[in-house]
Amino acid sequence: MFPISDVEFDNAVKRLGIMDVAGATIRQICGLAHELEQSAGEPMIHLEIGNPGLDAESIGVEAEIEALREGVANIYPPIQGVPRLKKAGKAFLKRFLDIDIDEKGIIPTVGSMQGSFTLQLLLAQRLKEKKDTMLFIMPGFPANRQQAKVLGIKTEQFDIYPYRGKALEAKLESYLSKGNVTGIMYSNPNNPAWTNLTEEELEIIGRLATKYDAIVLEDMAYFGMDFRRDIQAPGAVGSTVARYTDNYILLLSGSKIFSYAGQRIALVCIGDKVYDTKYDYLEKFYEIPRFGDAYIYGVLYVSSSGTSHSAQFALARMLEAAVEGELPFVEHCSEYGRRAERMKKLFEQNGFRIVYDMDGDEPIADGFFFTIGRDGMSGAELQKELMKHGISSIALATTGSEQEGIRACVSMVSSDEQFERLERYLKNFNNKP
Amino acid sequence: MFPISDVEFDNAVKRLGIMDVAGATIRQICGLAHELEQSAGEPMIHLEIGNPGLDAESIGVEAEIEALREGVANIYPPIQGVPRLKKAGKAFLKRFLDIDIDEKGIIPTVGSMQGSFTLQLLLAQRLKEKKDTMLFIMPGFPANRQQAKVLGIKTEQFDIYPYRGKALEAKLESYLSKGNVTGIMYSNPNNPAWTNLTEEELEIIGRLATKYDAIVLEDMAYFGMDFRRDIQAPGAVGSTVARYTDNYILLLSGSKIFSYAGQRIALVCIGDKVYDTKYDYLEKFYEIPRFGDAYIYGVLYVSSSGTSHSAQFALARMLEAAVEGELPFVEHCSEYGRRAERMKKLFEQNGFRIVYDMDGDEPIADGFFFTIGRDGMSGAELQKELMKHGISSIALATTGSEQEGIRACVSMVSSDEQFERLERYLKNFNNKP
Repeated sequence: MFPISDVEFDNAVKRLGIMDVAGATIRQICGLAHELEQSAGEPMIHLEIGNPGLDAESIGVEAEIEALREGVANIYPPIQGVPRLKKAGKAFLKRFLDIDIDEKGIIPTVGSMQGSFTLQLLLAQRLKEKKDTMLFIMPGFPANRQQAKVLGIKTEQFDIYPYRGKALEAKLESYLSKGNVTGIMYSNPNNPAWTNLTEEELEIIGRLATKYDAIVLEDMAYFGMDFRRDIQAPGAVGSTVARYTDNYILLLSGSKIFSYAGQRIALVCIGDKVYDTKYDYLEKFYEIPRFGDAYIYGVLYVSSSGTSHSAQFALARMLEAAVEGELPFVEHCSEYGRRAERMKKLFEQNGFRIVYDMDGDEPIADGFFFTIGRDGMSGAELQKELMKHGISSIALATTGSEQEGIRACVSMVSSDEQFERLERYLKNFNNKP
Repeated sequence: MFPISDVEFDNAVKRLGIMDVAGATIRQICGLAHELEQSAGEPMIHLEIGNPGLDAESIGVEAEIEALREGVANIYPPIQGVPRLKKAGKAFLKRFLDIDIDEKGIIPTVGSMQGSFTLQLLLAQRLKEKKDTMLFIMPGFPANRQQAKVLGIKTEQFDIYPYRGKALEAKLESYLSKGNVTGIMYSNPNNPAWTNLTEEELEIIGRLATKYDAIVLEDMAYFGMDFRRDIQAPGAVGSTVARYTDNYILLLSGSKIFSYAGQRIALVCIGDKVYDTKYDYLEKFYEIPRFGDAYIYGVLYVSSSGTSHSAQFALARMLEAAVEGELPFVEHCSEYGRRAERMKKLFEQNGFRIVYDMDGDEPIADGFFFTIGRDGMSGAELQKELMKHGISSIALATTGSEQEGIRACVSMVSSDEQFERLERYLKNFNNKP
């Protein structure tokens, strides 16, 4: 039964060879949670992993099956993407962001993970001697910085928490003015904080990206899930840095918005100006001067020779259906918002607080993630104590946050039984001597 | 009508911005062929690209559809692979190579392209300061060396043509004895030459790999397609370097043997000793000391977070069916052998010769590729003249071969009409003034 003792916890950590729980990867925490469940003889509440907690959109599954039946499995997929997917991606961006990107720049990748890995590689090459650094606006998805590290690319980062609004400008410029930043990466809505950049902040990022020739990688993994604004309402559109700079690349994944993570399918959407810019180094290295062409035929080709042929048709169909209003993906995902609202209340009733709580003067949305702190406890302590009490999560420190707390993901908690269990665990925590 | 004139040819080359036809990529040659077909007003014979020319194995397609119906699309695939696929891969290697690899080392990748890209990355890290060079036994698949280049890894290479048999030992040792080679890569059966290494040659490679701590990447993209020996006959097994060294990693792709290229699914098979070897640098860099673990959770994780969930079930099913004797994949692929025999005859009747023609004292097999030369013509000239006469191919030089000639792939030529057209084009070539 939870809570378990310090000794039991420490033994499990030792068995798994984890050197530092607060610094552990999500996969390691999953392993630890499994051990603790064995010790306690009852299930944990899993807030650590961001697996989609909904079924895959059936319209995508059906389209994928149809493509397989029509015989795409034996033919190499075009590396630049099947025409239908490129067209559907373009229409989706037009409808939900009101931006125009030429179809040539709409390119499938094996999840946004492959997108950000391969784009960082090319961003570090385009002006090789001059611009060699990726700047990450934190908190963020830890894997993105790890990608830069694996590729041998220099990184800078800062926690946006104390620099929201106007303060962002001076902070951002302090990095960009050095001239060595080739790309700026962030996720919006934010993983893990579930904050959303305001229009003021997006304008600052866009303007400075143009001024200093940095290219923005805007990760839209949770696109449309700022449930304060329904982007599927007639005439509504979402926010993006693409309205404030031509120096942008958007990462649009099917994993969360269509619950399609299993098939590893996403789109890299390269703005026309970025696509068409020619670089001497790329011409010399790949014999392909244009950034977008070098990305497809130079980098993506050697990374995996393209993305699953059938999954491309699945994503195409889901994007088309979303544009046509036939697939209410925002409504489907809003289930996460309802869970977050209910969960956050339980935490707050038991002495916890939301760490990242505001976007400008507006409370943040309820969605896929939220962040939790407790006065007088460090993030590492809080993570450990919560685990001992049956609640698994990751420490904010691993996400590049400088705040003390943990990240909670709502996706794996759905039944009333789980909510009641969460409440019981939280009460135990709050009432401990 | 083919042949077309020099002027028409040069104009098409110019329109596509190809700087050097003999050095062009396969994709560029495809583009050029398309242009020439427009000029000539009749189809070319396409020997340039290695798309599978058979339907995908239906047993795989059905398994993939079943997995999709059972609901795998919303769940992140395990990065190390689904258990069923790992088990099926192990059984396949046992049955057809008579080697034992622990299931933990059987890992799906987004085609062997992702396998060789990510493995080279890690091979260059394991003994970072000491071993920084990949050695390619040529001729080979041009993309593999390009991968090393994109990753900033040093390369060495040599054409095996003058070093077949015993002569291979001194040649190989001249590279390995420098101590800087971390990996040795080749494909067997060979792309483009369709040669097969003899047991004597595999023994030399294996023994020297052990002696100098180099890890062999054996690309088995065309496994079983040495049709001189039917590995699906009772008790028959194929050749592999794994019998001569523990320092091996096999790349087993579903693209050609099961005609499953569209779904981008392959297996990296890491020998137990390689998997379990611990490296200080990997411990420091990834906090994961073992090579195999670092590969999965360090490299593959950030490359794409795994491989299409449904495609893993497709490959698992095809491997199982091959082991059970239910899927005669060798017989299916032997269609390529029949086409090669017929085509090689047409070339030989018209004054051409096979360049890479022998394995030891045995003529090479008929299969997916063959190589063609013509006395008095360089490979570049031959490629260009054949294209003007309606036959598209790639120059051997792009494959790291030092022989003069072209590579021909049989996969896209199947109908009697195409064979008659090929014969007509070859006669035109042979009879030209």
